[in-house]
Amino acid sequence: MVPRYTRPAMMAIWAPENRYRIWFEIEALACEAMAELGEVPSEAAKNVRKRGNAAIASFSQADLDRIDEIEAETRHDVIAFLTWLAEKIGPDSRFVHLGLTSSDVLDTCLAVQLTQATDLLLTDIKSVLEALRKQAFEHKYTLTIGRSHGIHAEPTSFGLKMAGHYAEFERNHMRLLTARAEIATCAISGAVGTFAHLDPRIESYVAAKLGLRPEPVSTQVIPRDRHAAYFCTLAVIASGIERLATEVRHLQRSEVREAEEFFHAGQKGSSAMPHKRNPVLSENLTGLARLIRSCAIPALENVALWHERDISHSSVERNICPDATTALDFALMRLAGMMDKLVVYPGQMIANIESLGGVVHSGEVLLALTRAGVLREDAYRIVQRCAMATWTQLGKPEGRTFRENLDADPEIAGKIGSEVLDAAMDSRLHLRAVDDRYRMIFGETNLTA
Amino acid sequence: MVPRYTRPAMMAIWAPENRYRIWFEIEALACEAMAELGEVPSEAAKNVRKRGNAAIASFSQADLDRIDEIEAETRHDVIAFLTWLAEKIGPDSRFVHLGLTSSDVLDTCLAVQLTQATDLLLTDIKSVLEALRKQAFEHKYTLTIGRSHGIHAEPTSFGLKMAGHYAEFERNHMRLLTARAEIATCAISGAVGTFAHLDPRIESYVAAKLGLRPEPVSTQVIPRDRHAAYFCTLAVIASGIERLATEVRHLQRSEVREAEEFFHAGQKGSSAMPHKRNPVLSENLTGLARLIRSCAIPALENVALWHERDISHSSVERNICPDATTALDFALMRLAGMMDKLVVYPGQMIANIESLGGVVHSGEVLLALTRAGVLREDAYRIVQRCAMATWTQLGKPEGRTFRENLDADPEIAGKIGSEVLDAAMDSRLHLRAVDDRYRMIFGETNLTA
Amino acid sequence: MVPRYTRPAMMAIWAPENRYRIWFEIEALACEAMAELGEVPSEAAKNVRKRGNAAIASFSQADLDRIDEIEAETRHDVIAFLTWLAEKIGPDSRFVHLGLTSSDVLDTCLAVQLTQATDLLLTDIKSVLEALRKQAFEHKYTLTIGRSHGIHAEPTSFGLKMAGHYAEFERNHMRLLTARAEIATCAISGAVGTFAHLDPRIESYVAAKLGLRPEPVSTQVIPRDRHAAYFCTLAVIASGIERLATEVRHLQRSEVREAEEFFHAGQKGSSAMPHKRNPVLSENLTGLARLIRSCAIPALENVALWHERDISHSSVERNICPDATTALDFALMRLAGMMDKLVVYPGQMIANIESLGGVVHSGEVLLALTRAGVLREDAYRIVQRCAMATWTQLGKPEGRTFRENLDADPEIAGKIGSEVLDAAMDSRLHLRAVDDRYRMIFGETNLTA
Amino acid sequence: MVPRYTRPAMMAIWAPENRYRIWFEIEALACEAMAELGEVPSEAAKNVRKRGNAAIASFSQADLDRIDEIEAETRHDVIAFLTWLAEKIGPDSRFVHLGLTSSDVLDTCLAVQLTQATDLLLTDIKSVLEALRKQAFEHKYTLTIGRSHGIHAEPTSFGLKMAGHYAEFERNHMRLLTARAEIATCAISGAVGTFAHLDPRIESYVAAKLGLRPEPVSTQVIPRDRHAAYFCTLAVIASGIERLATEVRHLQRSEVREAEEFFHAGQKGSSAMPHKRNPVLSENLTGLARLIRSCAIPALENVALWHERDISHSSVERNICPDATTALDFALMRLAGMMDKLVVYPGQMIANIESLGGVVHSGEVLLALTRAGVLREDAYRIVQRCAMATWTQLGKPEGRTFRENLDADPEIAGKIGSEVLDAAMDSRLHLRAVDDRYRMIFGETNLTA
Repeated sequence: MVPRYTRPAMMAIWAPENRYRIWFEIEALACEAMAELGEVPSEAAKNVRKRGNAAIASFSQADLDRIDEIEAETRHDVIAFLTWLAEKIGPDSRFVHLGLTSSDVLDTCLAVQLTQATDLLLTDIKSVLEALRKQAFEHKYTLTIGRSHGIHAEPTSFGLKMAGHYAEFERNHMRLLTARAEIATCAISGAVGTFAHLDPRIESYVAAKLGLRPEPVSTQVIPRDRHAAYFCTLAVIASGIERLATEVRHLQRSEVREAEEFFHAGQKGSSAMPHKRNPVLSENLTGLARLIRSCAIPALENVALWHERDISHSSVERNICPDATTALDFALMRLAGMMDKLVVYPGQMIANIESLGGVVHSGEVLLALTRAGVLREDAYRIVQRCAMATWTQLGKPEGRTFRENLDADPEIAGKIGSEVLDAAMDSRLHLRAVDDRYRMIFGETNLTA
Repeated sequence: MVPRYTRPAMMAIWAPENRYRIWFEIEALACEAMAELGEVPSEAAKNVRKRGNAAIASFSQADLDRIDEIEAETRHDVIAFLTWLAEKIGPDSRFVHLGLTSSDVLDTCLAVQLTQATDLLLTDIKSVLEALRKQAFEHKYTLTIGRSHGIHAEPTSFGLKMAGHYAEFERNHMRLLTARAEIATCAISGAVGTFAHLDPRIESYVAAKLGLRPEPVSTQVIPRDRHAAYFCTLAVIASGIERLATEVRHLQRSEVREAEEFFHAGQKGSSAMPHKRNPVLSENLTGLARLIRSCAIPALENVALWHERDISHSSVERNICPDATTALDFALMRLAGMMDKLVVYPGQMIANIESLGGVVHSGEVLLALTRAGVLREDAYRIVQRCAMATWTQLGKPEGRTFRENLDADPEIAGKIGSEVLDAAMDSRLHLRAVDDRYRMIFGETNLTA
Repeated sequence: MVPRYTRPAMMAIWAPENRYRIWFEIEALACEAMAELGEVPSEAAKNVRKRGNAAIASFSQADLDRIDEIEAETRHDVIAFLTWLAEKIGPDSRFVHLGLTSSDVLDTCLAVQLTQATDLLLTDIKSVLEALRKQAFEHKYTLTIGRSHGIHAEPTSFGLKMAGHYAEFERNHMRLLTARAEIATCAISGAVGTFAHLDPRIESYVAAKLGLRPEPVSTQVIPRDRHAAYFCTLAVIASGIERLATEVRHLQRSEVREAEEFFHAGQKGSSAMPHKRNPVLSENLTGLARLIRSCAIPALENVALWHERDISHSSVERNICPDATTALDFALMRLAGMMDKLVVYPGQMIANIESLGGVVHSGEVLLALTRAGVLREDAYRIVQRCAMATWTQLGKPEGRTFRENLDADPEIAGKIGSEVLDAAMDSRLHLRAVDDRYRMIFGETNLTA
Repeated sequence: MVPRYTRPAMMAIWAPENRYRIWFEIEALACEAMAELGEVPSEAAKNVRKRGNAAIASFSQADLDRIDEIEAETRHDVIAFLTWLAEKIGPDSRFVHLGLTSSDVLDTCLAVQLTQATDLLLTDIKSVLEALRKQAFEHKYTLTIGRSHGIHAEPTSFGLKMAGHYAEFERNHMRLLTARAEIATCAISGAVGTFAHLDPRIESYVAAKLGLRPEPVSTQVIPRDRHAAYFCTLAVIASGIERLATEVRHLQRSEVREAEEFFHAGQKGSSAMPHKRNPVLSENLTGLARLIRSCAIPALENVALWHERDISHSSVERNICPDATTALDFALMRLAGMMDKLVVYPGQMIANIESLGGVVHSGEVLLALTRAGVLREDAYRIVQRCAMATWTQLGKPEGRTFRENLDADPEIAGKIGSEVLDAAMDSRLHLRAVDDRYRMIFGETNLTA
């Protein structure tokens, strides 16, 4: 991921230093487990741990360079690391990596890195939820027009709109927890995963210490259906980001102006057009969603490795693991900040509700007429006639409001009273279920938040 | 593809009758070529042609049933067809399919069907181009606001907007011609494509008669990079449909109302809300674009068949070949009709240009100030100040237009005259390149169209 | 989905009859709930239920034709159905669909259809698991070569190979249960989901009766992140099918011949080459996996509907809902049958293990040498030398086995005894963890199965 | 793209230095064009060119830091660059960027970078073609078994196999030329592309100098269907790489061993198993193909920008433009090297042809019998019987070859003579069309190459 979309905490997870730290941890734990099983001298295991810890604690650019230097020779990353480690540990290093394959270290390390990345993402979603919750409660009863097909339908509450996205991100949080469990497994099973040279208890020990579960059947590699499910989950979350970003882009349109991304003092929307204030954050999120989503397909194609394993997944994962998690981390935090600072214009929302001369109440008027005994087909014809007339005359001097057209309609006269029409055209009608839904989403205790 | 999105002409191309007609044609042509080469008695070839033609000409449901019946036994579609054909032709049928493999027939037939489908699609694009050209010329100088980021930028011409889409569909037409050439090849090369049992001149003969080129190396199958390129082209065209559909959806938004899909007398936008007129055609096109686009990935995954061939591509193509071409045919014709009948509201376009109090001219005012010697940084600050003030006061009783704010600005006073501001705020400025671009797109002779 | 890949049970779920049955059920339940709330006369609700049930029970082609006829007029599927229903129910039909939108019916019906489809798929996976379990236990200790990169690595058990796929399909079963919960929600919330004209208790009632949960915030539509997650799950399962299909394709290769799809008496592998027996089922599964996987992207693109809803998702779902579930149902059952009848050749597996002259034991020999005190680097060099020599001489008259090369190597002489080499080259070493892993996968009680 | 898969020449194209070099070139050319049109003092334009050239020629890390410093303030990359440039040029800098928008610079620069990248890729494909051509001619008549479904079919030539891939990469070369033309356009059209503040002749001038064509309708951005078509082409090429890589992976399988990636002296295939030589290059290429292919979908999703432009495509392109071209450059050159050094084992190819006891000649035997007057159905039954018997007895002491089974078959006796069977089982039969096809692919003059 380009630096522009990279936050330091996520970068650190995918940095070589962290990888080497985890590699050492896996090797040290395996060594300890072997010592407990009597396969390695206890003193040697302690020495590996002590000297290795010290080497990792003082890890510097010089160590990175040294490892790169060895890798340039051996063309094998794990062997390069082990050689460097041996230089630090001394003779006891011969008890390191005993019977393990490189994949044991690589795949278990990837599991640790992905769980670390996921923990960060889970926190990010919490930030999004906080921002959405804030807006949901601030605008619990803020009337706004609901739109289907981009066309004004009936009024709703802006808070409910936010609550709907909140509910989606709650689902995303739950999905990500499930996805985390998918990839949190450990493999210390040796060549083609038969434990021919390794006691399975070593794997159990390492797994427990790393907060992972042993992989039931690793065949030198952890099966890639797990990673496919993980990246699909990121794709779903990214699509949820896109939905909310699209909403904000719509709300900020010049003709709508119901909400706006925060615009910093001194910010320039365009070098050529000084009047511009653009929803650039939400547009950026739309693009990032496309990027994250695109990682699902290669992750799915990685599943069908040949026989016990091939290495075709490796080049894919070297890219999509850091890229997708980094982009999602950035996107979620950008979204959280954007929604937290979103500038909302309730007055413009009311103005927009009213901008079509009241036709948005056509549904309730239709029901009122049918309740008054008019046949549904007739009622529809009458109300549509009045609504279309209103629509056509919008903005014209001679234009009449929907109510005026209804009042003047001969077929309505005498059917329903003025107070019925008043009630039918009261936007507050559309807020009646807000409390009920907030209870469902935020729980009882949160209603006063 | 579900019947809802299927037009008869495309359905006919993918119908079993057409497939059997083409299969027979391939077999008959191969037989004729063998007769010319002296490998088959001339009389036999003539008989095959004559009786086969008659059988195909009188092809009925009974024939379909008979072929299905045989296939239920043999589990092989080509063998079932050949058996049926033998029943029609009699003893000379032993000169049919001599040395051919099923794939020779299947892949060459697919090439013919795809070229037929493509010819239909090319005609469809012509219809789209016609509709776009009509709107482009009707609204060549119709002013409308140009929008970047969904925010009013500067005026442009609605015709130019249409011309831009016209240019894209011209590109799509060209791409589809290229894609047609990609898949218009013929393979009559036998098992694993070695011509061990077939003279290559048979392939040349059949290819020429069918309007195809011989495939240089078919390995029992025509290589699938051709089909991948073809489906990618459909995906690009579908995305162009989505771009135009998205434009219409935006233009029809309740707050924009600059254009609208034609709404039939008696049409109902919503059963519950009589006032609704929704851009359902363009929304439908957006969904169809997603469907068509999704066929690109499996087509690309089909390329890496194992060795000389495997059959994994078959189940994919049985679906995506009819589905993607059928959906695209439907979508293009729906688009053509929609654009042809699009209701355009030039008055609302002007109203929208003016709705932001004139700030859309900030760019030209900025240039005017710099031309008058004001430092660009200062000019930007001044113009942004006036624009933001206008923006903030929009719709308020005390609100001032951009021009009023400029006129009242002490830093502008004396710098530029009133007539300079008049010129800077004249939307017609933005029409100056329309002629130039129309020449580039439609050619000289079309300027008066 | 083309008929070729459609099983009757899944076809029935997506047939119009089932859709109308569910539509009626939703309407009848909503009517009953309104009756309980006193909004509709109790007798009317009973009448709707009684006459409606009768109409659905006797539903025939004539009814289908009648509905199609009405839809051709009204261009609205739900209105067409309601009109037909009114004809069957009579005057009480005015209490049907009161305050509901079409989307309430459509989205809730889709939830029911998808849960029905998913229940079928869950059963299908059980069949796959049964077949895999059978092979796993039949071949628990059947030695076969483990392959990494397509190259012989070390022996493993064919049963463990099967157990690994069993574990993956257990995960797929669990994922599908989660996906089922994702889409099993109900929306009876009216225009833009505000319950303005509907008591939320109606939704709760309908949901409970249909085995669904109420959707917290439906905005006329059920949010599409649910469906995106669902289709991504199908894509993961499809990829698991592809992995197993790829394994079988490899095993059946002419050069490997360790297992084979069942070949029926009388079956023809090729019309031109009578000797052929091709793994056509597993190749077909590979293609179907591509198809199913391709549905994930449009489902993800469907998430970002505009505002409260647009209808772009509809054309996508009309295709991918039946297509992906139908293809997956077919693929799973084909896989189950294929694995159940898979012909396994343990003798050929042994022959293949031995075909490289024993070099597959190089890893254990390496360990034996290091255990005997040889430096790892030296040991590697020695063993690699012997292995490469063996490899090069394979099939040559003067060729020596790996063991012969080791025995003749001067650097090994005296380092390790013959019995150590015997042990190192005993394939049974690689079966030592099989019991442990079977316990983990199949549980204690299943070990004797 | 991670450094591991990045070659220096491609990295240089996407480096900031190159971007700034191109940005300056665009600005300098636009300034020159304005000077020619009399809109800018001629001396000023010369000064801009002279001082700018010098600044670019001496561009160093300090300049990069300075630009980053300004961007940190202004949050706008083009403004940061222009400010830096102004510091270098002095007062005449006010004639730079006159009437241009940032997009004019950005999109035209992207066109230049993509053409540079494409030129590199075209050269890479030439290297692949060279390697394939070499193998094709070296093994023009090298017999090898053709495989359909992974099962031995009939013999073919290894050279023809290579020639087939050569033909595919010729097509890829042609496609990439077309794709290059797609994206080689220039936009200097100002806000929303109306040329309100810019003479179209400026665009023509800049385009000509940069080797680009003017974009007919740029709407501040160059339309993204061009880039979508471009990335789809990369996806098709990547899939072709995967096909060839898959072939090599198959050929190197332990059971096949017909060809092998070059294995360096001293190379280690596995740290744990000294005998391993793995096709890691072709597996790596398989993964890279997945990565490159995955860029097609977001590029297609980028097409439907809103109205005249939004900025959602930007974050996508910042990643996929360098990533996809870099990965493809690396993959093509890796492929070229791999194919050039591919170790081919003709002896093993013959051994494999013979390994099934001669059944691979069943097709020609079948034809021979039918030519001798046996009914096709009978001939098939007889030949299949002999082939299956051979197959079943493979490797068994009592096993008979296909020929022996044919000779012993009572239904064959007397039907065809021994010399007919000799001819039918001569693999050289399958080389008869090689010359013909080589002429078609490589041309007449190349036949002796």
